[in-house]
Amino acid sequence: MKINSLKGMNDYLPAEADLRDYLQSTILRVYKENGFSRVITPIIEDIENLDKSEGGDNLNLIFKILKRGDKLEKAIEEQKFDELSDMGLRYDLTLPLSRYFANNRANLLTPFKCIQIDKVYRAERPQKGRLRELTQCDIDILGSDSYFCEIELIDVTAKALLEIGLSDFKVRINDRRILKELLLSFGFDESEIASVCISFDKINHIGLGGVEEELRNKEFSPAGIEKFVSFLGTMPIDIDMLPNSESIENLQRIISGVKQICNGKYSIEFDISLVRGQGYYTGTVFEIESNEFKDSIAGGGRYDNLIGKFLGETIPAVGFSIGFERIFCILSERNSQMPKTKKRIAFLYDDFFTAYTKAQDFQAEYDVTLFEKPQKLGKFLNRLESQGYYGWITSDELKIFNER
Amino acid sequence: MKINSLKGMNDYLPAEADLRDYLQSTILRVYKENGFSRVITPIIEDIENLDKSEGGDNLNLIFKILKRGDKLEKAIEEQKFDELSDMGLRYDLTLPLSRYFANNRANLLTPFKCIQIDKVYRAERPQKGRLRELTQCDIDILGSDSYFCEIELIDVTAKALLEIGLSDFKVRINDRRILKELLLSFGFDESEIASVCISFDKINHIGLGGVEEELRNKEFSPAGIEKFVSFLGTMPIDIDMLPNSESIENLQRIISGVKQICNGKYSIEFDISLVRGQGYYTGTVFEIESNEFKDSIAGGGRYDNLIGKFLGETIPAVGFSIGFERIFCILSERNSQMPKTKKRIAFLYDDFFTAYTKAQDFQAEYDVTLFEKPQKLGKFLNRLESQGYYGWITSDELKIFNER
Repeated sequence: MKINSLKGMNDYLPAEADLRDYLQSTILRVYKENGFSRVITPIIEDIENLDKSEGGDNLNLIFKILKRGDKLEKAIEEQKFDELSDMGLRYDLTLPLSRYFANNRANLLTPFKCIQIDKVYRAERPQKGRLRELTQCDIDILGSDSYFCEIELIDVTAKALLEIGLSDFKVRINDRRILKELLLSFGFDESEIASVCISFDKINHIGLGGVEEELRNKEFSPAGIEKFVSFLGTMPIDIDMLPNSESIENLQRIISGVKQICNGKYSIEFDISLVRGQGYYTGTVFEIESNEFKDSIAGGGRYDNLIGKFLGETIPAVGFSIGFERIFCILSERNSQMPKTKKRIAFLYDDFFTAYTKAQDFQAEYDVTLFEKPQKLGKFLNRLESQGYYGWITSDELKIFNER
Repeated sequence: MKINSLKGMNDYLPAEADLRDYLQSTILRVYKENGFSRVITPIIEDIENLDKSEGGDNLNLIFKILKRGDKLEKAIEEQKFDELSDMGLRYDLTLPLSRYFANNRANLLTPFKCIQIDKVYRAERPQKGRLRELTQCDIDILGSDSYFCEIELIDVTAKALLEIGLSDFKVRINDRRILKELLLSFGFDESEIASVCISFDKINHIGLGGVEEELRNKEFSPAGIEKFVSFLGTMPIDIDMLPNSESIENLQRIISGVKQICNGKYSIEFDISLVRGQGYYTGTVFEIESNEFKDSIAGGGRYDNLIGKFLGETIPAVGFSIGFERIFCILSERNSQMPKTKKRIAFLYDDFFTAYTKAQDFQAEYDVTLFEKPQKLGKFLNRLESQGYYGWITSDELKIFNER
């Protein structure tokens, strides 16, 4: 039998599992203190829901679950090989949440401020830092179109990151409607905008020249391309230089609101090049980028049409998701302290029953593991210390490792 | 798009999610205090590992994941319809743990005492109380054949149940080897024993007569059946009446050991009819049954050969698993208190920025949700109270609902 975990999916050692628990419970605590409520949805969704969810490239990465019994036989018999599956693993937490809100709306307070901390699955091509089983930590506000939602989501997410020891990050924000208005004003057709954005989204990887080349290859009007490229040549673009519009004003209010409440603990800036991959975003999009790691550690945006696909009625919605695996990577390498967690000691016993009872006296202060006293005590103590034990007990006396 | 969660898989409302979090974190705390270490494994395993894992009926309930791309095309092209899948969702936490231990052994302390609290998946025929996505809370001890392991697992599991407010339960224990020795002494052949046990396992559902009929239908030697049935006619069977053997002595030590440390908080008894479904158990098997609900709420046993399938070397192992969904059902209906969890209040604001800042003063004591002050205040306050809010703040003053 195969001994390794599947590619892109990790086994976590006890110290890693403890760090993950600590980070998730700290993030959960901050979210709850700030008035968001935890919800839980299944990891499996109907395949049609997933397929129609406008998830962008993620739709190509869905793990599909094989039909069973008669249904499977029927699909094979009828040679319908694109109907071998009727369920799939979720690729994010936004689609399940939209279905959840539609399903449970009568029992929820609106605006609904909620938390999800859970696993999602993507059949990524395995490479360093790309997992196929990954955890996301999301907060969302459903049922309000107020720009206070964006301010609250951004600052509460930032608070969670600060609480787990991350700092030195900046928020980048844009609004897809601004980009759309610009492209329309340059002469692009409404039907071309999604395709232009896909090319534009690559600007940080392929540069302005690369974007221009791709747009020419897609055979858009040369005049439109020229206007767009010459406009982008002036990047970084100050939001105040853009022609006034409702989405610009909305974004200006968000940016100044965040600056007002963040107490200078992080910065926020307009970035016209921020697009984000998901197709379901309809307005504001935002990311948090670690200045230290030059990497996005959280991303989100407004998705006002997704819940409507379930309800047939538009419900405004906006969410922000921490990419937990990047946070975990950063903090693992930093060898983070976990404040407020109990230390672990070993009780090395001659008599099991005496030790089992006495161990309870220490449990208020320590996590206590019982081991039969080993023949080679010194060697075993070294093992304990290397495993992060704080000390050990023999003959009723607690000894601390770093006091040896 | 489909609004309901898939059958056998639940959406959890905030109050339900909070109760699940509270129960899981309490169980985790008790397990950790008692010296077990958390480990995490992926929910997806290689399909061959799952298929060869001797999981009994659960092997028929595996959700299989469809192959992708070239691999899928090849299987379809070659008409190999039993090779459409190469991965599956785990049906329990024991198989993944065995693989984990084999994979990570060099980095683990032996005996390895570990915790898993995680989701498993079974394609059960949907019916009340049978979920297809369910959580289990397991502790296991790997690398020791001492009967102290069973004592520790049983008492620590019982402590966790007591801590979350369950009491009035009893432990039932047996050893598969005792049953095997008995059946051999009655003249059954070694090769027949598994099949006899499958019939015998049904005794609480079909009665002694039903078991006898099934054994006759399976055409075992009538003399053997007669001896077995007449022996069972004397149930409940006292362990001291059985012919002495190593497994009997081992079981007697476990029973008297548990009685010694449990302080009369629960009872433990020998039950010859306890078999349990999994094929991988090799010795002791045990369950905790709620006297109040006449239902098994935890089950476990010794599985000395499973890790060996990965390592080619026998590693003794024993585990105990709380069926979290039953616990959750029982405590939901009981409307359980969650001590030590923060109460939630609403801050109804006229000015967002003032409220956002002031809310932080209350967050040490409360979880604080911000809402724009609604037009119909009375109606909104009723909604808040029905959603479990403890009070609300307007114009800087906290008001408590039950003091209205």
